[in-house]
Amino acid sequence: MAFRSTIVRRAQDATDRGTLRAVLSEFISTLIFVFAASSGSSLAVDKPAALLIRALATAFALSVAVAVGTNNSGGHVNPAVSFGAFIGGNLTFNRCFFYWIAQLLGSIAACFLVKFGTQQSVPAIGLSGGVNVGRAVLLETVMTFGLVFAVYATAVDPMSRTKDRLENIAPIVIGFIVGANILVAGPFDGASMNPAASFGPALVSWTWKNHWVYWVGPLLGGGLAGFFYELLFVSSSQQSWRRDYF
Amino acid sequence: MAFRSTIVRRAQDATDRGTLRAVLSEFISTLIFVFAASSGSSLAVDKPAALLIRALATAFALSVAVAVGTNNSGGHVNPAVSFGAFIGGNLTFNRCFFYWIAQLLGSIAACFLVKFGTQQSVPAIGLSGGVNVGRAVLLETVMTFGLVFAVYATAVDPMSRTKDRLENIAPIVIGFIVGANILVAGPFDGASMNPAASFGPALVSWTWKNHWVYWVGPLLGGGLAGFFYELLFVSSSQQSWRRDYF
Amino acid sequence: MAFRSTIVRRAQDATDRGTLRAVLSEFISTLIFVFAASSGSSLAVDKPAALLIRALATAFALSVAVAVGTNNSGGHVNPAVSFGAFIGGNLTFNRCFFYWIAQLLGSIAACFLVKFGTQQSVPAIGLSGGVNVGRAVLLETVMTFGLVFAVYATAVDPMSRTKDRLENIAPIVIGFIVGANILVAGPFDGASMNPAASFGPALVSWTWKNHWVYWVGPLLGGGLAGFFYELLFVSSSQQSWRRDYF
Amino acid sequence: MAFRSTIVRRAQDATDRGTLRAVLSEFISTLIFVFAASSGSSLAVDKPAALLIRALATAFALSVAVAVGTNNSGGHVNPAVSFGAFIGGNLTFNRCFFYWIAQLLGSIAACFLVKFGTQQSVPAIGLSGGVNVGRAVLLETVMTFGLVFAVYATAVDPMSRTKDRLENIAPIVIGFIVGANILVAGPFDGASMNPAASFGPALVSWTWKNHWVYWVGPLLGGGLAGFFYELLFVSSSQQSWRRDYF
Repeated sequence: MAFRSTIVRRAQDATDRGTLRAVLSEFISTLIFVFAASSGSSLAVDKPAALLIRALATAFALSVAVAVGTNNSGGHVNPAVSFGAFIGGNLTFNRCFFYWIAQLLGSIAACFLVKFGTQQSVPAIGLSGGVNVGRAVLLETVMTFGLVFAVYATAVDPMSRTKDRLENIAPIVIGFIVGANILVAGPFDGASMNPAASFGPALVSWTWKNHWVYWVGPLLGGGLAGFFYELLFVSSSQQSWRRDYF
Repeated sequence: MAFRSTIVRRAQDATDRGTLRAVLSEFISTLIFVFAASSGSSLAVDKPAALLIRALATAFALSVAVAVGTNNSGGHVNPAVSFGAFIGGNLTFNRCFFYWIAQLLGSIAACFLVKFGTQQSVPAIGLSGGVNVGRAVLLETVMTFGLVFAVYATAVDPMSRTKDRLENIAPIVIGFIVGANILVAGPFDGASMNPAASFGPALVSWTWKNHWVYWVGPLLGGGLAGFFYELLFVSSSQQSWRRDYF
Repeated sequence: MAFRSTIVRRAQDATDRGTLRAVLSEFISTLIFVFAASSGSSLAVDKPAALLIRALATAFALSVAVAVGTNNSGGHVNPAVSFGAFIGGNLTFNRCFFYWIAQLLGSIAACFLVKFGTQQSVPAIGLSGGVNVGRAVLLETVMTFGLVFAVYATAVDPMSRTKDRLENIAPIVIGFIVGANILVAGPFDGASMNPAASFGPALVSWTWKNHWVYWVGPLLGGGLAGFFYELLFVSSSQQSWRRDYF
Repeated sequence: MAFRSTIVRRAQDATDRGTLRAVLSEFISTLIFVFAASSGSSLAVDKPAALLIRALATAFALSVAVAVGTNNSGGHVNPAVSFGAFIGGNLTFNRCFFYWIAQLLGSIAACFLVKFGTQQSVPAIGLSGGVNVGRAVLLETVMTFGLVFAVYATAVDPMSRTKDRLENIAPIVIGFIVGANILVAGPFDGASMNPAASFGPALVSWTWKNHWVYWVGPLLGGGLAGFFYELLFVSSSQQSWRRDYF
């Protein structure tokens, strides 16, 4: 039967090369997916529409900002992304440092414009009652790991920039992961994943309680993502083991 | 009249070749559309904002996870997708088995991180009162058929990976079908479409009631989608009947 | 000054060729935009979250269905789209007829599956109290004009399929226009824009009151869009007046 | 260690050329991001679901309209975008003028259709109590700067139209920035960013109070964005400093 023979032929194309890396990729991708889809814990939140507003505004805004910056700076807009790029060897220390300064200044300028324009306070991000700092650091680390892993997979990985053109939708995907994570952890630790986005409101509202959480967690998660993506999936790409059949 | 002659010329380019397959494609596509848009039954739900949060978090998270895994493993993150790929002849049995293990482990790890980080229980998926298991299996089968059919049409079909480049938006479309289906069937059977996403919360909360529903339905739907897409639309593609004019 | 001379040079590249068509394009595009963004009238609706659920489920589901069908049938999933393609000379009468049958059967099958799976009635689309049929036909006509115009501009226009690759995001954009229009007119005439999507629920719930509105309006709007897009923007494309500079 | 040497080699590829422009890009991108994500001030709004409806309808509708007009006119659908294109030297004065007329007529036609079809008033945009006109002009200026900057970065910049193909997702990103900004400033100054979209409702409802705000702010913001993007990032592109390594 012609149909059957097609199947057999194609299945035979598969070898065991790269299976370990593929399996690792499934493990990490599923972890990122199930975590970012675990909004069940947020369903008890008392203002669900407000949570939706924050998640969508941040997701849309980040998609735009990444697209706007892509051509000229890579569109990091986040010290944790720049740190992950540095750790993975894709950004010099000097440039990473200047990016941080620019990101912090951009955030401060935006917060002053919002405060002056709306005459409302710009609330600093913070922990909900009952969430301790250790768990908040863990949540920020896991979420920023997912974010920076997504940046690497769609915008840094040479495969995404040439053959697969995943790069085309990278800004949208990067916005989506932050939106999903906010729906999961927003009611608990605020779900920042971005030290610059936390620094501006903290400065303008002069609220520094637990501010360090939003530096330590994101930098740890971003650094780990940069290190592991580069180690597992990029530095071996010359071996042409990737995408051998699927 | 020049305009008229243009129309006539182009209409004549059409032949009857492939009409049957095109008509089958319209039938299945419209079925998937009308089912996934039938949120009318959910409108009586008492917490509509919570339903929106779950649908958007899952849609966004899945888009990201598919994109993250595309280059290295295909980005299945779902045993039903891997099973559909196996049935269609696009994945070996061995690799399918290892993918399942990795997906289950990724889901378990994510659920423990959510539980430990938020100090909330991770609720297992389940049936609403009054929904019997037979109907739940049917809903899961139909929804996962739509999901895996979308995966095949946008990410596996050789046409999407070369000429049409639908592959570019595959991760977004795959996230959207799950989001829409959750809005339709979430209030009734939970709308999992993914045995790994159901297994993690079931294990962490140790809630196994009706758990088998979320394996049987998705695997049945995914397998049928892989079989039929491959049979109807891929294995005959050498005959160049496709896209002869539209 | 080098910057200034760059501006002058590029501005001189512009000629008056094609200005009329460009101006017509701005007129129609702005009309579609402002109409589909005019949700102000819907804000008095008493169940805003239910409206959001319906709009997002339909938008997401349509994006998926269009993508799923693209390779094999063009992904119409809507008799009004097929009719517009026929009027514009991009589909033979015979194939248009068979597409209609397939779309109606797909919709009926989906509605029976929803009804049987959820044990809920599948509500037929209808007019809200106080909306007369004439105005409902007008709303359906305008909205389906926007939908089919978007289909033509992103998926049928040869420019979108070659140079600009707008075709890549066509399924997403086509889903979005239906989502936006539902947010505008959903509370008034139901906002179907699709005779097949209206026919299934009408048959399954056996509710035929004003059903003809959801055929006349969409077919009129779809036919006009196909005729005018082809006349104004496609049939003259050999004159290479398009995109001469912007 | 092979992995380490890869990092060092690639890091050495980086030079200081273009660092200043990259840093400016990060500053502006982060400013646009943090502003458009600052929905915290809107969370006190009394009708959050209505705000979501307006933001999503406008975002979706604008994405569609930009895509619909791309091939034939560039898809501005906004006098502020046309003005920014004129200021940056990408549109002649004459064509800009005719675009404005077409955009205003399209908006008027849409508003009459909405009013006649739904029998509801089409509410004019306006300031909330307590927001003075100076701050409203500032908000419109900042938001439209972000919008037109996004248009330039994704659809006008020659890099986005050739090498990076960001142009592919330009309509989606342009819709997203307007959606995010509405979630931030909608409850304060209405968040128009588009004189044509404000003019139609003002005319149809004959409400002209503070109408000038929605011309001065958007034109100022759009003009500044066109001037600065062209000056900083396009006019020097022959120097090949861009994307030298990232």
